[in-house]
Amino acid sequence: MLIEVICTGDEVLTGKIVNTNFSYMAQKLEDVGLSVRWGTTIGDDRDTLLAAFLHAAERADAVIVNGGLGPTVDDLSQEIAARAAGVELVLNEEWLATMEAFFAKRSRVMSPNNRKQAMLPITSEILDNPIGTACGFAMDIGKARFFFTPGVPRELRRMLEEQIIPRLLAKSGTQTAIRLKRFHSYGLGESHVDEMLSGVEALVPDGSVKLGFRAHYPQIETKLTVRGADYADIDAKLAPVVAEIRKRLGNFILAEDDDTLEGVILKALARDDGSLALVETFTGGQMAARIMPLPGAEKVLLRATVSRDLAEIYDAVGLTGAEPLEITRETAEAVARAARNESGTSHALAVLIELDDGPDRIDFGGTICIGIATENHVESRRSRILGGREWVRLGAVELGLDCLRRYLHGLPVTERIDFERT
Amino acid sequence: MLIEVICTGDEVLTGKIVNTNFSYMAQKLEDVGLSVRWGTTIGDDRDTLLAAFLHAAERADAVIVNGGLGPTVDDLSQEIAARAAGVELVLNEEWLATMEAFFAKRSRVMSPNNRKQAMLPITSEILDNPIGTACGFAMDIGKARFFFTPGVPRELRRMLEEQIIPRLLAKSGTQTAIRLKRFHSYGLGESHVDEMLSGVEALVPDGSVKLGFRAHYPQIETKLTVRGADYADIDAKLAPVVAEIRKRLGNFILAEDDDTLEGVILKALARDDGSLALVETFTGGQMAARIMPLPGAEKVLLRATVSRDLAEIYDAVGLTGAEPLEITRETAEAVARAARNESGTSHALAVLIELDDGPDRIDFGGTICIGIATENHVESRRSRILGGREWVRLGAVELGLDCLRRYLHGLPVTERIDFERT
Repeated sequence: MLIEVICTGDEVLTGKIVNTNFSYMAQKLEDVGLSVRWGTTIGDDRDTLLAAFLHAAERADAVIVNGGLGPTVDDLSQEIAARAAGVELVLNEEWLATMEAFFAKRSRVMSPNNRKQAMLPITSEILDNPIGTACGFAMDIGKARFFFTPGVPRELRRMLEEQIIPRLLAKSGTQTAIRLKRFHSYGLGESHVDEMLSGVEALVPDGSVKLGFRAHYPQIETKLTVRGADYADIDAKLAPVVAEIRKRLGNFILAEDDDTLEGVILKALARDDGSLALVETFTGGQMAARIMPLPGAEKVLLRATVSRDLAEIYDAVGLTGAEPLEITRETAEAVARAARNESGTSHALAVLIELDDGPDRIDFGGTICIGIATENHVESRRSRILGGREWVRLGAVELGLDCLRRYLHGLPVTERIDFERT
Repeated sequence: MLIEVICTGDEVLTGKIVNTNFSYMAQKLEDVGLSVRWGTTIGDDRDTLLAAFLHAAERADAVIVNGGLGPTVDDLSQEIAARAAGVELVLNEEWLATMEAFFAKRSRVMSPNNRKQAMLPITSEILDNPIGTACGFAMDIGKARFFFTPGVPRELRRMLEEQIIPRLLAKSGTQTAIRLKRFHSYGLGESHVDEMLSGVEALVPDGSVKLGFRAHYPQIETKLTVRGADYADIDAKLAPVVAEIRKRLGNFILAEDDDTLEGVILKALARDDGSLALVETFTGGQMAARIMPLPGAEKVLLRATVSRDLAEIYDAVGLTGAEPLEITRETAEAVARAARNESGTSHALAVLIELDDGPDRIDFGGTICIGIATENHVESRRSRILGGREWVRLGAVELGLDCLRRYLHGLPVTERIDFERT
């Protein structure tokens, strides 16, 4: 099935906003085994909208149009859709009532120009938008089925998932039960993960399992898309593949599905009424900023101390009398131990970084010494990461948090990763 | 002049990567008074590439194609460009020599498949790429001038600015001298800034000054694009407008052009050999993370302490004996004073936040108390921000840093902002 996406709006066309709606839609379709063949970006302009609709109507089987459903004069999608199909634009009483209820529920008065949002091409089928006043709709233009969606990301997302994808899957005639299983890993490069997972799709011989990757350094997301007759069928197919992936990637899997590294750490600490003191240097507060926004983090991450100066850190954690020595595993251990004592937490993590000298460059590096302390135990690790200041910082944030995750789960903290140099 | 942009590549089409190249190009063109009329996104596929090139060749005067110039088999831009124009693809000896020198300089051996990157349509003009092996080129297809650019962002950026924009301006017949002047402000909403600057364009009656905005909450960027016969002409036109904007936005302008809020703060502190201690609560390290990555920050931001627990903060800054009271201006002042003493810095900034209770929602808010201390002086401010947890956090980071900027520049710290509720 040939699918096209048309993104409308001057703000997107002029680059005032980055078009994340497009990548979101394309990924969501990929996740259910569909794909976008052609993307078009145009402004709020009648002639180009009409031309774009007519082009797509000739080429595609299905077209998703994003934006232009709002109440203002530059929102033109319904008008041009009606013109492209050669049908009338009429007031849809059903959507008008929905909007009136929407405003009444929020004790707000509906402005007269919202009425425009209920003007729909007479041949259209409503696509419900339970969280906004923009009415989604589907209709035929030329040989294609068009799906009109709001530009507001959360409204688009819900409509795509609940209303449009089921219709596209039904239209494409594929089995409609589908599931996406995701694994997040850190420490292995994308091609390495790809190689390690070679052949896992073949564990399900009917070809209904598809493997894919998405790299957002330093993490890699491994995605499995599975189709089946129903969810029991899918679960039966998925089980051996999931088990095999967990076995092959092992300790490198830091979370699955919607879980995150920082969320997994918080959960592991909170489970045992644990608490954390954090010491950062060149990461500059980014580790704290990953954990602190999570609900409940305020009871776990009791204190973070950030400084680039080792003497300052010694002072902050009460390591009085210690000489500012060089950054080593021993220093990181001593700082973690002292930070734990100072804050009275169950755990402490110290990430100390010695940066190379000189200007930023592609082989600029840093030596990262990580210390983790509990009441009766201390662990440490030393790694070198090269790739420029920003790359070193991102890598150190992830490495530090991942070492803590490993420690909390009883996994080896010093396992070698692809990103480090010796 | 009608300009189109065609972005190619499976990674962009499938949404694996967000297409920031498109928004970058569109903004850069807007900045010089040009605009994109139509954007197309397609994969690494011969048929769709050819169709997209031919469509654009019929409609546009100029077309920028991004991606597909690499050495691998899925890089198809040169091949399809030649086919679309009906011309031969030939080895360009000049670019081959450039590539060989590129590899030699880096003591690397050129792989045989790089040779493909020097195969160009015989009618093409080279667009230099001094930082990569992908050869940019320009050629006519149909009635349009096509500009082929690499997908690597830094290579694209340099080629667009140095090679393509001057050619587009020459082709459009507009005066080629152009300058972009930018003001960054915090505390005023976009429509408020728009209203405050009403009429400033008219200070230059010939219409050569264009005003625009770009909002990235919580900051607003105000942009002036000015055209002229030459740079002296531009400077003469710009001077009164810049003076007027500075006058009208006044204290709310936090930086101009490439300067940033955190950079301005760092510069002001470093100028007087000053230093900073930072205390954060709900902002969770994000303020430190803004300042710490800047070169030289390690000598200025001596220590940041992050905790959501007031007792913990009192302990960290040595406020022994103080009761954990409620978060007020007085508390913020006391914490700032103590943090300064503890670290021996010239300045301290404390941003304490009392969050509302209950689940996240659109009218979820926080009360922000900011204290700034120097040896002989202390200032404070109290604000309420509503809009959900994430919104409150972003607002508090900006408000805290902006209060410090105001303090360092001798401006009033308590001036009312649009984002606060009483």
